[in-house]
Amino acid sequence: MRQDVSGLVKKLDVEKVSRLLDIPLHRITGALKRKTLQYVRGKPELFRFDKPVSHVDGGTAVFIEPFDVVRGFPKISRTLMLYPAVSRHFSSCRKVAVEEKMNGYNARVALIGDEILGLTRGGFVCPYTTEKARDLIAKDFFLDHPDLVLCGEMVGPDSPYVPKSFYDIESLEFFAFDVREKITGKPMPVMERRALMGEYGIKSVRLFGEFDVIEAHIEITRIIKELGSAMHEGVVIKDPEMSVPPVKYTSSQSNCADLRYAFELYNDFGRDFFFGRVCREAFQSVEWGEDEETLGERCLQLGESILLPMIKTIKKKKAGERIAENVQIRVKSLDTVTEFQEYLRLLGVDAVFEEPQKMGIEYLVRIKRINHSTNDKTEAILGGQMWS
Amino acid sequence: MRQDVSGLVKKLDVEKVSRLLDIPLHRITGALKRKTLQYVRGKPELFRFDKPVSHVDGGTAVFIEPFDVVRGFPKISRTLMLYPAVSRHFSSCRKVAVEEKMNGYNARVALIGDEILGLTRGGFVCPYTTEKARDLIAKDFFLDHPDLVLCGEMVGPDSPYVPKSFYDIESLEFFAFDVREKITGKPMPVMERRALMGEYGIKSVRLFGEFDVIEAHIEITRIIKELGSAMHEGVVIKDPEMSVPPVKYTSSQSNCADLRYAFELYNDFGRDFFFGRVCREAFQSVEWGEDEETLGERCLQLGESILLPMIKTIKKKKAGERIAENVQIRVKSLDTVTEFQEYLRLLGVDAVFEEPQKMGIEYLVRIKRINHSTNDKTEAILGGQMWS
Repeated sequence: MRQDVSGLVKKLDVEKVSRLLDIPLHRITGALKRKTLQYVRGKPELFRFDKPVSHVDGGTAVFIEPFDVVRGFPKISRTLMLYPAVSRHFSSCRKVAVEEKMNGYNARVALIGDEILGLTRGGFVCPYTTEKARDLIAKDFFLDHPDLVLCGEMVGPDSPYVPKSFYDIESLEFFAFDVREKITGKPMPVMERRALMGEYGIKSVRLFGEFDVIEAHIEITRIIKELGSAMHEGVVIKDPEMSVPPVKYTSSQSNCADLRYAFELYNDFGRDFFFGRVCREAFQSVEWGEDEETLGERCLQLGESILLPMIKTIKKKKAGERIAENVQIRVKSLDTVTEFQEYLRLLGVDAVFEEPQKMGIEYLVRIKRINHSTNDKTEAILGGQMWS
Repeated sequence: MRQDVSGLVKKLDVEKVSRLLDIPLHRITGALKRKTLQYVRGKPELFRFDKPVSHVDGGTAVFIEPFDVVRGFPKISRTLMLYPAVSRHFSSCRKVAVEEKMNGYNARVALIGDEILGLTRGGFVCPYTTEKARDLIAKDFFLDHPDLVLCGEMVGPDSPYVPKSFYDIESLEFFAFDVREKITGKPMPVMERRALMGEYGIKSVRLFGEFDVIEAHIEITRIIKELGSAMHEGVVIKDPEMSVPPVKYTSSQSNCADLRYAFELYNDFGRDFFFGRVCREAFQSVEWGEDEETLGERCLQLGESILLPMIKTIKKKKAGERIAENVQIRVKSLDTVTEFQEYLRLLGVDAVFEEPQKMGIEYLVRIKRINHSTNDKTEAILGGQMWS
């Protein structure tokens, strides 16, 4: 796996990166050798951190021409029970701000040179996210604040990464949930950030309010039950000053929706994905002190979320169909379609693009993402192969 | 991890092992260094294969004094659907023999020198299994056939490895399902083996019959449904000549019982354990063409098997109890208790033994196996720690 990285070392300007990100030089060359710090061909050229190195988050992108850095979006811890986790975690705060966690994909938008670029969680520049970001976000913001990166959720039916949407959104919208310094990753306090977004007409995720830490778990329980019944995902609980890292908590309906989605593609998902979601259900039921009837309902819900989609997949395969995930994108420029197709190829995703359909001034393109592992495993078992 | 193994090389007589098991010499020393081939102190001293090396199964035991080998019990493949797996797998056979797969623990019994020893699947000599084997199996068998090893299931409530038993067994019984040559591992044809067991009054697992390969899946479906409703585990399907390797298939009730057991100790089990069992349910439902009502019942069953035991564990921990597994052994000699206690310590199992209770000519000893991982994780989350 190790390779000669002298060319990459020259291209990257490792000394500058070492200084700026405060990583020892040898750890950068080591990361290049292990491809934890990965060169990504394309326009623009960049290096991305595939995983954390030292204290630098995975998803951090280092641009070459012009030189610039966009810090990765930090992983948010999850709690399985609100009490006493919230009051413990935020013990140094008087209040917590509770914002909605939406079900879309994480995107960072930043100005590199004189271009607005849309980055995915992994630190790739996604051509589709870029076109959408340029459309949805006033360039003024970046002209006034070239040192800031907008972090938010891209939500809606025209999403190439999320097949279903439970929001009243026509195409795709960007909802900011963080504004950070590009190079340091330092976040802006919650209310200041929301006011700033308001000034530039950029949407923010919903704020449920600021609550006293000691009773926040009661308010959040109420909020989560409401969100759940609307099939919404959950909340992120934040120190208003953003000094203490945020914590996320999700509804049972969202867990089950995730499971339904994942079990349709049961062999393409990591096994931890299933396990974690099951554990959330158990702890939530205990925290909410559920009676037998409610618990029975939860058990049925869980069982159905696991078995029904998997059975659907097996039957589909039995009928000779191919297991695929249907998503769609909507673009103004057909060039974006070509670029997005190349981009998916670079990521190793096997996707079939249908012919673009003219819709007013835009084009709708339906995409089938082929899930080879589930396809192959299901076909093998139906054909008489052993499980193991 | 690597260590100086010259002492072990001398003790083992690697050349003899290399010749007998047909493994290249350097692979044996390599396995010793990696501890894949592991020295086990104790009486008797032995080396065990922790994992397969070349074509030699994990669980193979090499005894030193006197020198002898007991081959590991081979892993049996599992099918998730009976059709067309059975007819494909056994395409070279005219008939298959179907025997019951019981829910106990796998044991091999062999004569080493002039002592009958009971080995676990992993290739350890278990003092409890040894006492039981000497009690249950006529020594005559081994005097007449010193070159054979009896492979079978130890089943019943007095089992230190399996907490629940659904059979009408008072203490612990041995049911043979295989007779193999000690050194080569070569199996005996099914009917010959059953007749031989009969001659010596050794119990065999239940034989459901020999069926034509092309219609075996129909018979086995019927058998599995019957077994399931009695909470029994499943079947092993065999080439009567034992030339083609056997295949196992289990009932939904047994899958769910496994899940109930594992989710009570959710953090002590591997995540593949859960995943595999869930997949079995989905494929079985498709193969059986279930209607909506039956499928709904299966979903509820699955959801309950996952959530209820985990919730029970969380509530127990919340009430300040320790998460433990209750098992019991019944012995004639108190020495066996001491030896078994030492043996569990060697395996790294944390177990608390209660005072032996006199029961006729035997002693009953209740044992609590402490499941640290589930204990610690549950306590941490209840105390306000994040999931990740």
